[in-house]
Amino acid sequence: MRLRDLGERGLISRIERAAAKVSGRSVVLGIGDDAALLRPRAGEDVVVSTDASVENVHFRFSNESPRNVGRRALVANLSDLAAMGARPMGFVLALGAPGELLVKRVDGLVAGLLHEAVRHGCPLIGGNCSQAGEVSLAITALGAVKRGNALTRRGVRAGDRLLVTGVLGAAALDRARAERRGRVRHVAEPRLRAGLALTRVRGVGSCIDISDGLEADLGQVLDAAGLAADLEPAGLPLPRGFRRACAALGLEPLALALGGGEDYELLFTLRPRGPSAAWLSQRLGVAVTEIGRVVVGRRQEQRGWRHFAR
Amino acid sequence: MRLRDLGERGLISRIERAAAKVSGRSVVLGIGDDAALLRPRAGEDVVVSTDASVENVHFRFSNESPRNVGRRALVANLSDLAAMGARPMGFVLALGAPGELLVKRVDGLVAGLLHEAVRHGCPLIGGNCSQAGEVSLAITALGAVKRGNALTRRGVRAGDRLLVTGVLGAAALDRARAERRGRVRHVAEPRLRAGLALTRVRGVGSCIDISDGLEADLGQVLDAAGLAADLEPAGLPLPRGFRRACAALGLEPLALALGGGEDYELLFTLRPRGPSAAWLSQRLGVAVTEIGRVVVGRRQEQRGWRHFAR
Repeated sequence: MRLRDLGERGLISRIERAAAKVSGRSVVLGIGDDAALLRPRAGEDVVVSTDASVENVHFRFSNESPRNVGRRALVANLSDLAAMGARPMGFVLALGAPGELLVKRVDGLVAGLLHEAVRHGCPLIGGNCSQAGEVSLAITALGAVKRGNALTRRGVRAGDRLLVTGVLGAAALDRARAERRGRVRHVAEPRLRAGLALTRVRGVGSCIDISDGLEADLGQVLDAAGLAADLEPAGLPLPRGFRRACAALGLEPLALALGGGEDYELLFTLRPRGPSAAWLSQRLGVAVTEIGRVVVGRRQEQRGWRHFAR
Repeated sequence: MRLRDLGERGLISRIERAAAKVSGRSVVLGIGDDAALLRPRAGEDVVVSTDASVENVHFRFSNESPRNVGRRALVANLSDLAAMGARPMGFVLALGAPGELLVKRVDGLVAGLLHEAVRHGCPLIGGNCSQAGEVSLAITALGAVKRGNALTRRGVRAGDRLLVTGVLGAAALDRARAERRGRVRHVAEPRLRAGLALTRVRGVGSCIDISDGLEADLGQVLDAAGLAADLEPAGLPLPRGFRRACAALGLEPLALALGGGEDYELLFTLRPRGPSAAWLSQRLGVAVTEIGRVVVGRRQEQRGWRHFAR
């Protein structure tokens, strides 16, 4: 069956039924009205983040299952909530697709979205389906954070320590493999618990999630402040067996770890007297590695994915 | 200049600078971080609505200025907030575009969005730019409404009166004209003040904005409740000179008014003893017309725009 056989109302009903399995305590009114209603707790700010996944730009059905595409699409948004230290409340989906799209592909996309939605308590609360030349998922995730507690990209100072959760390069390695043979299977873990825990740690200066690669996202934090980083590349946390796997494929491990993108780990700065990486690992529930320091100066180059570039 | 000459960062900076002109009292943190922060007032729920405008589906650059496209794209979302009785807090934009797109077209789209953003106090607070095969604007608008005051599609009863703001068919007439010659110029007025005023009127059962045409949207309200409408087509509020303009183009005025879409007027139901249309016109600050009654039964057919249909 193709999307055009189902029609817009049919598609919406189908997504509505699937989405009804995931509920959220912050949702007053979900799918089916002109808009959804969310209820943050007293003293909370609302966190809003939007991100899109576009066919042949962010994914290809030829080397990735629709379910995996859906999972990654929501993770990208949840990761932004994590980087603000927010708890998820719900998300909306603007789905663009051609009439010829197989309905089972849409089912797969939705199943992937809802898989992550269940895991992270972030129900689908509304959306929009539109005809389009290619498949795209524009997702807006809504969260909540206690007033004044949000982690931002500001607040970085020279002398701050640079830390990162988890390991870097796994998504890039998986993508490189999929380009040669096989399929994209990697789905990152949005660091929601770690982000929430970070809001309670003293001395955190700024926080960002690594979506475009460590170098590019570090640049986002430092450039605005006119600062640079003193990184020790040998100290970057890499996945187990990473160097060997890269060697087998003729890839440069550091290039993937620094510029690969889609790791969705948290990169944050900490005052010199803040807690140790070991203490933070325990508190955040994920490995935390100190990778360098913020210094005065300007950084030189960046890797990482750029849109619209030649 | 093309989008690819500007690059993603260049495009984001350009939009950021333009968006900085519009501020909002509910915005704690706007564009430039992993997510934006909004602060609803105590006792308010957050209203979330998403809608997309896609090139060659919702608009064509051959017969509409980018500015007009941008205006209509935001109005579609603001109208959903209006139909909930919400006040706008801000919106996010997921922009998809090919690298060959002229930057002046993007400038026009953004200028149109911001024109309506200023008029309705709804600043651009974040977004995402992505390469895509065609231009698309997926917008999520955020608003706030006092708890328990939101207007929904529920609450309709047999015997309720059916009322509508403004006039119907103007957008459809403009579109029909543009298909033959000339350009799309019509931009509807999102009924935000009227929606807010309606939350304070006793006896309002349900409310929806007319985006797909009166018949289709009335169906949305009635079908779920298993009810039908007794409409008096001769009593529909039409724009001045509408019948004559339709006749000149060989169009059926009622077909446009019933099925045209994009009027973005509010359609609401009212208990039999609720206030008169005249009283409501004054209270809502816009003409209100009583167009029929809710009756027991099932409606038969619908007109209006359907996506993915053959």
